[in-house]
Amino acid sequence: MDSLRRLEEIFAHFPGIGPRQARRFVYYLLNKSPASLKEFTDLVQEVKKGTSECDMCRRIFIHAKKPSNVCSICADPNRDHATLMVVARDSDYESIEKSGAYRGLYFILGGTVPILDKEPEKRIRLEKLLRRVSGSPAIREIILSLNTTPDGENTEHVVSVALRALPLNSNCKISILGRGLSTGAELEYVDGETIKNALQNRH
Amino acid sequence: MDSLRRLEEIFAHFPGIGPRQARRFVYYLLNKSPASLKEFTDLVQEVKKGTSECDMCRRIFIHAKKPSNVCSICADPNRDHATLMVVARDSDYESIEKSGAYRGLYFILGGTVPILDKEPEKRIRLEKLLRRVSGSPAIREIILSLNTTPDGENTEHVVSVALRALPLNSNCKISILGRGLSTGAELEYVDGETIKNALQNRH
Amino acid sequence: MDSLRRLEEIFAHFPGIGPRQARRFVYYLLNKSPASLKEFTDLVQEVKKGTSECDMCRRIFIHAKKPSNVCSICADPNRDHATLMVVARDSDYESIEKSGAYRGLYFILGGTVPILDKEPEKRIRLEKLLRRVSGSPAIREIILSLNTTPDGENTEHVVSVALRALPLNSNCKISILGRGLSTGAELEYVDGETIKNALQNRH
Amino acid sequence: MDSLRRLEEIFAHFPGIGPRQARRFVYYLLNKSPASLKEFTDLVQEVKKGTSECDMCRRIFIHAKKPSNVCSICADPNRDHATLMVVARDSDYESIEKSGAYRGLYFILGGTVPILDKEPEKRIRLEKLLRRVSGSPAIREIILSLNTTPDGENTEHVVSVALRALPLNSNCKISILGRGLSTGAELEYVDGETIKNALQNRH
Repeated sequence: MDSLRRLEEIFAHFPGIGPRQARRFVYYLLNKSPASLKEFTDLVQEVKKGTSECDMCRRIFIHAKKPSNVCSICADPNRDHATLMVVARDSDYESIEKSGAYRGLYFILGGTVPILDKEPEKRIRLEKLLRRVSGSPAIREIILSLNTTPDGENTEHVVSVALRALPLNSNCKISILGRGLSTGAELEYVDGETIKNALQNRH
Repeated sequence: MDSLRRLEEIFAHFPGIGPRQARRFVYYLLNKSPASLKEFTDLVQEVKKGTSECDMCRRIFIHAKKPSNVCSICADPNRDHATLMVVARDSDYESIEKSGAYRGLYFILGGTVPILDKEPEKRIRLEKLLRRVSGSPAIREIILSLNTTPDGENTEHVVSVALRALPLNSNCKISILGRGLSTGAELEYVDGETIKNALQNRH
Repeated sequence: MDSLRRLEEIFAHFPGIGPRQARRFVYYLLNKSPASLKEFTDLVQEVKKGTSECDMCRRIFIHAKKPSNVCSICADPNRDHATLMVVARDSDYESIEKSGAYRGLYFILGGTVPILDKEPEKRIRLEKLLRRVSGSPAIREIILSLNTTPDGENTEHVVSVALRALPLNSNCKISILGRGLSTGAELEYVDGETIKNALQNRH
Repeated sequence: MDSLRRLEEIFAHFPGIGPRQARRFVYYLLNKSPASLKEFTDLVQEVKKGTSECDMCRRIFIHAKKPSNVCSICADPNRDHATLMVVARDSDYESIEKSGAYRGLYFILGGTVPILDKEPEKRIRLEKLLRRVSGSPAIREIILSLNTTPDGENTEHVVSVALRALPLNSNCKISILGRGLSTGAELEYVDGETIKNALQNRH
């Protein structure tokens, strides 16, 4: 029966899970009662049905009784609708929200573009982003908030090039997060590029 | 909708998974297509149906076409049926099998008994072990292979007391794994108890 | 004989060394030949005599044949003498030099000021810094490059307050390193304060 | 001046110290006052003079007023003089003493023999061990307590071969520390060789 190997394989694709832990997950489930397993698989389906991808920001959100197409952030009149932050994943916007430092809207790319990747549009929701931006002339700033890793920087480049090709209104600027020393940084151990950035952005 | 929190909770009980990663699992699944999710939940159910708990050793095993009650190890005439190794979990017997050092049979307790626990019989398959042993007068040695952690040592104690209360034939001995220096141990960093054991078991 | 304990104590004050490793150092030395030990202690004395603290930046530097009072950086006409970077320790300026991003001069404080410390002037060369700055009207910018740790930020505050109390020429500005995302940062794991800084310093 | 590099090199040979920390040690010392440095180098010399290598066990020990050739352990009539434990280093016998599990005498080899090393007698005090053993017909057991690392096992082999070539009295046995599960071991993560040993040494 190969379904066991296949299930292990699926778990091994879960974020942060290797083959060994994937195997432990399978054993863990097999030792559960049929009732527990049914609750688990039912919940997975139910949760999928109870959530939607927001038409505006592509965030996964829990819809209230009637299915809605716009999430609570995009629908919130108290947020700053003139600022749009582009992030790679749901976990990134969550981190930003938790900081309490941002009051604008988001757009979730759904992934990153590895360097030399030939088909970036298959990795991220580039077309949907361009449509979202084109349809909102009120947007004054688009903040590209990507990881400062090679993949993140490449994604920033790809998105930036595509946005600049749009006939954006002249008041809309594209910005990126400031680079420099993070909290708790010790100069002795900081890499040269970060020192360069911290010096350039000194104030 | 609380089903999202409930699913997070379930993932947080997976081995080695904390609340943060549990949340990432939920997002990961929510970003999958309905078809992928269906494959996943179907596989969980299918795998559960395609496996059984062995009547003899309580191992989870994949049964062949016709459901069988005895696993391939317990049914193997080439294994040593006079030696029974008691382990806590499936992952423990796998580790022993991989070492290639053991040719007897196993019994999986299904857990461990924390210190001061009042109802050990709810934590481990103690009664099933006693029945397994009582019904097999051919057993000459029962090896208790538990972790050398507080829980493991307490489980060893509980199982050992229960086994010794049985009217075992006088040829059957109960043994435990040798204690001492593990591979790669450096004396400078070895704890006092291990040094004591290594000295006692010197040869 | 307490000299052994005293030597252990001295080693335990070496950067990054705990009591256990201090003890190993003592044993290590005791197992050396008298000739090796003499080479070691002679070198310590020789190196001390062969180096000086630069009169201008307080860096330890190796002086050429004739003892000199000014180090090679402070004496270099090709460096930018209008910019002074204040760092806590020798290892910090080394890290900055290695980045290749800075061409000005340095001043080494010789330490940091812990929060609530009553006598900061005993912890850092504050008076010498003030004299260095007062005596150099050509200085246009003083960059405070301290760790972004609590001690570093407190030191930055102490130094900044003292510098601003000087009758500096109106062209001289005091700046600090830019804060934001460091190289390789992943938004999901970045702390809230850094996100706040990165947003504020976006460009 | 190359004495600085040479001092760095010497520190980089201290146990557990890499080139980076060696450099920090040099800076640390250079920032000390001449008086502190004199105390340090004087102590190193004084400690060396105040300690001796025990003629019997080769341990470094602090001698009382009159220089003595035998350490307090070897001179202690309450210890078991019929048992000799051979260890690689001072830190190893310290670890054994701390366990409180051993009351015999020691012999410190002063190092280990790497695999394929051509001149083991230059690495360890093999000849002195053979003389120590030959001159003490009262010894009943020699315990080889080496790390269970490749170097440790090779040293055990070299010493064992040399000891067995001696005309030892027939009552003297050579033993090694027991191998098996160390305290806190979890079977799931234990290597195959340790499982093999633990099974072999079960009791």
